[in-house]
Amino acid sequence: MISSREQVTQLIVSAKVAKGIKWAEVAEAVGLSKEWVTAACLGQMTFNKQQAEIIGKLFDLSDEAVAWLQIVPYKGTLPTAIPTDPLIYRWYEVVSVYGSTIKELTHEEFGDGIMSAIDFSMDIQRENNPNGDRVRVVLSGKFLPYKSY
Amino acid sequence: MISSREQVTQLIVSAKVAKGIKWAEVAEAVGLSKEWVTAACLGQMTFNKQQAEIIGKLFDLSDEAVAWLQIVPYKGTLPTAIPTDPLIYRWYEVVSVYGSTIKELTHEEFGDGIMSAIDFSMDIQRENNPNGDRVRVVLSGKFLPYKSY
Amino acid sequence: MISSREQVTQLIVSAKVAKGIKWAEVAEAVGLSKEWVTAACLGQMTFNKQQAEIIGKLFDLSDEAVAWLQIVPYKGTLPTAIPTDPLIYRWYEVVSVYGSTIKELTHEEFGDGIMSAIDFSMDIQRENNPNGDRVRVVLSGKFLPYKSY
Amino acid sequence: MISSREQVTQLIVSAKVAKGIKWAEVAEAVGLSKEWVTAACLGQMTFNKQQAEIIGKLFDLSDEAVAWLQIVPYKGTLPTAIPTDPLIYRWYEVVSVYGSTIKELTHEEFGDGIMSAIDFSMDIQRENNPNGDRVRVVLSGKFLPYKSY
Amino acid sequence: MISSREQVTQLIVSAKVAKGIKWAEVAEAVGLSKEWVTAACLGQMTFNKQQAEIIGKLFDLSDEAVAWLQIVPYKGTLPTAIPTDPLIYRWYEVVSVYGSTIKELTHEEFGDGIMSAIDFSMDIQRENNPNGDRVRVVLSGKFLPYKSY
Amino acid sequence: MISSREQVTQLIVSAKVAKGIKWAEVAEAVGLSKEWVTAACLGQMTFNKQQAEIIGKLFDLSDEAVAWLQIVPYKGTLPTAIPTDPLIYRWYEVVSVYGSTIKELTHEEFGDGIMSAIDFSMDIQRENNPNGDRVRVVLSGKFLPYKSY
Amino acid sequence: MISSREQVTQLIVSAKVAKGIKWAEVAEAVGLSKEWVTAACLGQMTFNKQQAEIIGKLFDLSDEAVAWLQIVPYKGTLPTAIPTDPLIYRWYEVVSVYGSTIKELTHEEFGDGIMSAIDFSMDIQRENNPNGDRVRVVLSGKFLPYKSY
Amino acid sequence: MISSREQVTQLIVSAKVAKGIKWAEVAEAVGLSKEWVTAACLGQMTFNKQQAEIIGKLFDLSDEAVAWLQIVPYKGTLPTAIPTDPLIYRWYEVVSVYGSTIKELTHEEFGDGIMSAIDFSMDIQRENNPNGDRVRVVLSGKFLPYKSY
Amino acid sequence: MISSREQVTQLIVSAKVAKGIKWAEVAEAVGLSKEWVTAACLGQMTFNKQQAEIIGKLFDLSDEAVAWLQIVPYKGTLPTAIPTDPLIYRWYEVVSVYGSTIKELTHEEFGDGIMSAIDFSMDIQRENNPNGDRVRVVLSGKFLPYKSY
Amino acid sequence: MISSREQVTQLIVSAKVAKGIKWAEVAEAVGLSKEWVTAACLGQMTFNKQQAEIIGKLFDLSDEAVAWLQIVPYKGTLPTAIPTDPLIYRWYEVVSVYGSTIKELTHEEFGDGIMSAIDFSMDIQRENNPNGDRVRVVLSGKFLPYKSY
Repeated sequence: MISSREQVTQLIVSAKVAKGIKWAEVAEAVGLSKEWVTAACLGQMTFNKQQAEIIGKLFDLSDEAVAWLQIVPYKGTLPTAIPTDPLIYRWYEVVSVYGSTIKELTHEEFGDGIMSAIDFSMDIQRENNPNGDRVRVVLSGKFLPYKSY
Repeated sequence: MISSREQVTQLIVSAKVAKGIKWAEVAEAVGLSKEWVTAACLGQMTFNKQQAEIIGKLFDLSDEAVAWLQIVPYKGTLPTAIPTDPLIYRWYEVVSVYGSTIKELTHEEFGDGIMSAIDFSMDIQRENNPNGDRVRVVLSGKFLPYKSY
Repeated sequence: MISSREQVTQLIVSAKVAKGIKWAEVAEAVGLSKEWVTAACLGQMTFNKQQAEIIGKLFDLSDEAVAWLQIVPYKGTLPTAIPTDPLIYRWYEVVSVYGSTIKELTHEEFGDGIMSAIDFSMDIQRENNPNGDRVRVVLSGKFLPYKSY
Repeated sequence: MISSREQVTQLIVSAKVAKGIKWAEVAEAVGLSKEWVTAACLGQMTFNKQQAEIIGKLFDLSDEAVAWLQIVPYKGTLPTAIPTDPLIYRWYEVVSVYGSTIKELTHEEFGDGIMSAIDFSMDIQRENNPNGDRVRVVLSGKFLPYKSY
Repeated sequence: MISSREQVTQLIVSAKVAKGIKWAEVAEAVGLSKEWVTAACLGQMTFNKQQAEIIGKLFDLSDEAVAWLQIVPYKGTLPTAIPTDPLIYRWYEVVSVYGSTIKELTHEEFGDGIMSAIDFSMDIQRENNPNGDRVRVVLSGKFLPYKSY
Repeated sequence: MISSREQVTQLIVSAKVAKGIKWAEVAEAVGLSKEWVTAACLGQMTFNKQQAEIIGKLFDLSDEAVAWLQIVPYKGTLPTAIPTDPLIYRWYEVVSVYGSTIKELTHEEFGDGIMSAIDFSMDIQRENNPNGDRVRVVLSGKFLPYKSY
Repeated sequence: MISSREQVTQLIVSAKVAKGIKWAEVAEAVGLSKEWVTAACLGQMTFNKQQAEIIGKLFDLSDEAVAWLQIVPYKGTLPTAIPTDPLIYRWYEVVSVYGSTIKELTHEEFGDGIMSAIDFSMDIQRENNPNGDRVRVVLSGKFLPYKSY
Repeated sequence: MISSREQVTQLIVSAKVAKGIKWAEVAEAVGLSKEWVTAACLGQMTFNKQQAEIIGKLFDLSDEAVAWLQIVPYKGTLPTAIPTDPLIYRWYEVVSVYGSTIKELTHEEFGDGIMSAIDFSMDIQRENNPNGDRVRVVLSGKFLPYKSY
Repeated sequence: MISSREQVTQLIVSAKVAKGIKWAEVAEAVGLSKEWVTAACLGQMTFNKQQAEIIGKLFDLSDEAVAWLQIVPYKGTLPTAIPTDPLIYRWYEVVSVYGSTIKELTHEEFGDGIMSAIDFSMDIQRENNPNGDRVRVVLSGKFLPYKSY
Repeated sequence: MISSREQVTQLIVSAKVAKGIKWAEVAEAVGLSKEWVTAACLGQMTFNKQQAEIIGKLFDLSDEAVAWLQIVPYKGTLPTAIPTDPLIYRWYEVVSVYGSTIKELTHEEFGDGIMSAIDFSMDIQRENNPNGDRVRVVLSGKFLPYKSY
């Protein structure tokens, strides 16, 4: 009996290691970006029926697990409020060090409002560079203005 | 007497509102990107002598304040570990929801290591879109591999 | 010299007590809802030039203070992550006790996504009731769906 | 052997996914609002004997589980003090950003006291809107005044 | 200029030490219980006009301070979530050690609901006892039942 | 094998629900107040041999469990520093709002010292009231003075 | 105007450094142990009138400050829940590492109850030792038993 | 399979209750103080081979468990940073209330440095007293001076 | 089925105690430093295929466990943000007490930037000393400068 | 009037920026290592009379400030438990990632005990390297063994 999406995530993660599947291959099977598909496999997004069945086949999941993939999950992947993993911490550090800069420049350009984290997409790429390759990430989020009422 | 960089940041912020200067204009005066210059004005980066003097003139700072701009600051701009401001929180949410995805995909492409937050640049742009303009942010950080020894 | 919006909020709050002005009167002067105007006076929203000048006259603010009212503020009004004030705590308690219910029912009706806290309005009214009057609050937020990409 | 209401909640949640039942259907079977019934199924409210038996049949629960549904539970549904799930966080953000506004306006209308979170009801509806449908939530809580003694 | 009720509390506390006034005398002057009057002087309750003027005379407060006494305050008197003062900690310890007992027995007698902390009174008395006098505290709060809807 | 008192508490709680026993009946069987007996059953107090055997019979506990009831437990019943359950939170709110009042009045009557939470008793009663019944709680703790040395 | 005991503590600490007085000399002047007198000077205990006047003369305090020394203070000297100062941390470490041992052995000897921190004294001495002198601390607290009722 | 010292501690604690052994008897069998032996049994100290075998026999431990007793453990016995158990909390309160006193007096006698919590011993005794017996604890730790270099 | 690297770490730790293997021997078998190999065995670094197979043989791990050793782990070994174990705490204390010193001197020598914790190595050695042997640790990390852009 | 060492640290820091003095020059004037002298100037160590007077002349401090330099300070330089500054955070990350490794290897070499942070020295050097210079830090702390008693 499965009582949370986290259990399905563990099944996927276990199967992925055992079978040596890559996230890029999973994304290709589903026909969407590797960023969204990985997030969904890790329990952050909701698959539709067709997508869930593809995932189910790839990772040998039970029908019950496939049903859970179609349920909106409780989101959030950090085990602690401040992440301990060095790779993820660097992102938190960017928010910590550049937070007020991001705020100032977004407001200077757009006025009061936010960059949506829902109507949002992310693209992670390798950028070749003679001084050492770089991770290049493009974030795109709709600007949502505060309005008076 | 000035005993911390934060005091200089407050002087700059006060003068900016009083004079109605834009960050883009400050960046142009300094001759660098608006992202780096804003972060530096907000107390997160270190100006060299020439840059500090330009800032000093723009915001009518004392010599002592100009000296402080050239001292490496204690960095970090969030008043609480989890930011309360909605715009900055959305960035924290991206780290929270996509953290494990970013980790997985970076490792799948590069192996064990991190994306540097030091050898790092950021570019914030408006992206015109008929469904509502979007905030487009490009992050570029050098990949630093863990090596065995 | 004013170096943060919080200082302007304190000026407004002091003047409000000294002069005995009501928020409803402020809202009427500005011509908008009492909810938005109060939030803006308390440092959570951004006034435009005309609105800021009305507020400035009502509370005898300096030109510098009026300039600050037009700058996007750092938002958040709780002095602690969990509020200590009983009235505000009850709202936190609603989120604590009904959080998963709100999530389940919103997803059942709309699918994966959120209720926006930006494209959002609030209306607080007295509801006469023979068993004791009630506070009636209507919240309205645009539904923002997560989409795959 | 069941030693906490949380175990019963997990049984219900598992059965709900496996059987594909909707909360609205559960509410209809019980004959009460979907908000209260969902909260009760998620371990926040206490069912009476008759209600518990209806729930027990719908989700194939044991007699022991049905007995637990009639025991007042330890309430609270957030796994962390500040919720990580974006949908629930938006509600916390409303409390954070509008907290002082809600307090000021309630006191302006009613004097010192609180809006009850016990003698309280909630109604969540879809509001059709050409700019995108909205989530409309009505909260109604009895005003409880502080009195001197 | 006074910008918060806390400043008025400090004025009262300073004057009380300088003048050597007792809380029991303040309560007598106001004509209410010492528990409510002390809480109000310490910034937790709202005085009406007449009461505030009595307090103002007793402690030589300015008109502005007297006006603040009539404004509903932001409540909460603990400087940390868990109190460090031994006397106050013992009360927190009672909540910590007896919390589940209080919950069980209140529910056994009344069903689901709470003991109100708003429609609430407290009486603190000395209880003579040959083994050492005791502090006897009577708490009385209205029972507020959860109801289904 | 039982390795903590908490496991025994869970056995008691499970058996209590399954058998439909009331705390008042347990107290009567033991011959002590319902407050102390409930706290002890919930793992906060230590039973003597005779009492533990009565409890063991009532809840069908093993000899090992009965032995654990006679071991001094690690005390504390709140799963979080600030309780999430509304009933228990109201008690924390009393400490939060009235904490400084309790401190001031106890010191005014007794001088420096504390009200003991060890040489302490509690009595919870229903108080009939035409405006709605009230929960009446009497706390009695020995005053322990600080002395100089 | 003095509005808290902490301000008096700062006056004493400043005067102590400026005048080069030792705590042992203060204790001798008051005629009590150095442990109690130091704790009282640091704002943790309450002086009587005669003692407060001695302290007032030693440190050139105003009458208002001397009055504050006779008011029961809000106790607690750690700026953070876990102390950062290495000397004080070692005491916290003793509680952390030996906490369960202290609990077990006290209960084995005395049964359920606590060692009082109110009816309590402390004595700190140098213990000469050829391998390096030792700090020898004797703590003595009355055992307070839990009793059933 | 045992994967942490905590599992061995649980085995010891379970066996101790089941067999009714006293810590003083364990200490006698090992031939060391009851304070050190109890701390070691509770997973805070490292036994040598001979000692571990004595413990193994007393509590019927497997060879694997006996091997674990000889591995240096991860130390710390408090489940929360601030202990909830009243007996252990009183010790934390001593650190909280007397922390600055201990610091001042140790420095006055010894200069800058700390009292070691490693080269440290503790002795807990009953002190007979007509006003109620007392817990008498002697702590002895080597003074370690900070030196310049 | 293994669903996290932590489970593999527990298998290694259990086998290490059962077999009495030393980390130095493991390092020798792998042919790398004891610092890196220990960190990797404890779940902080990623083994390549050949290294993982050596580890697998030494500790009798399954093929699935050996596969997990080649997956980049979620890093971080402290169970609490501030470590409770005295040995590890001393390192945290060094960061706490010397943090600003390290920052000042690194910046004085290198300018703005950091010492990498990724392009980093550590060497722990015994340093013989007549006054008691010392732990000598050499840390070496690449200096990474912040640059303007 | 100076009431804490932190105020003296601020005076030193202000003077250092205004005068453009380097820590290495301060160390040379005092005749000790730059690591110890910087830590002492930043309020973590205690100067003797002669050293304090040298510091006083270099930074134009008052006699009162010079007296404070000779008083043992309350230590700890991190404004938050987890440092936000990237340079200092990297050290915390080393403790987080390598904590268990440091513990294991120190115990393997020395047995149970700790590396002292009191009888401790630190040396920070530039290490020239064609791939980019490195920060080389040597830490040396006396090993302090736990002994049974």
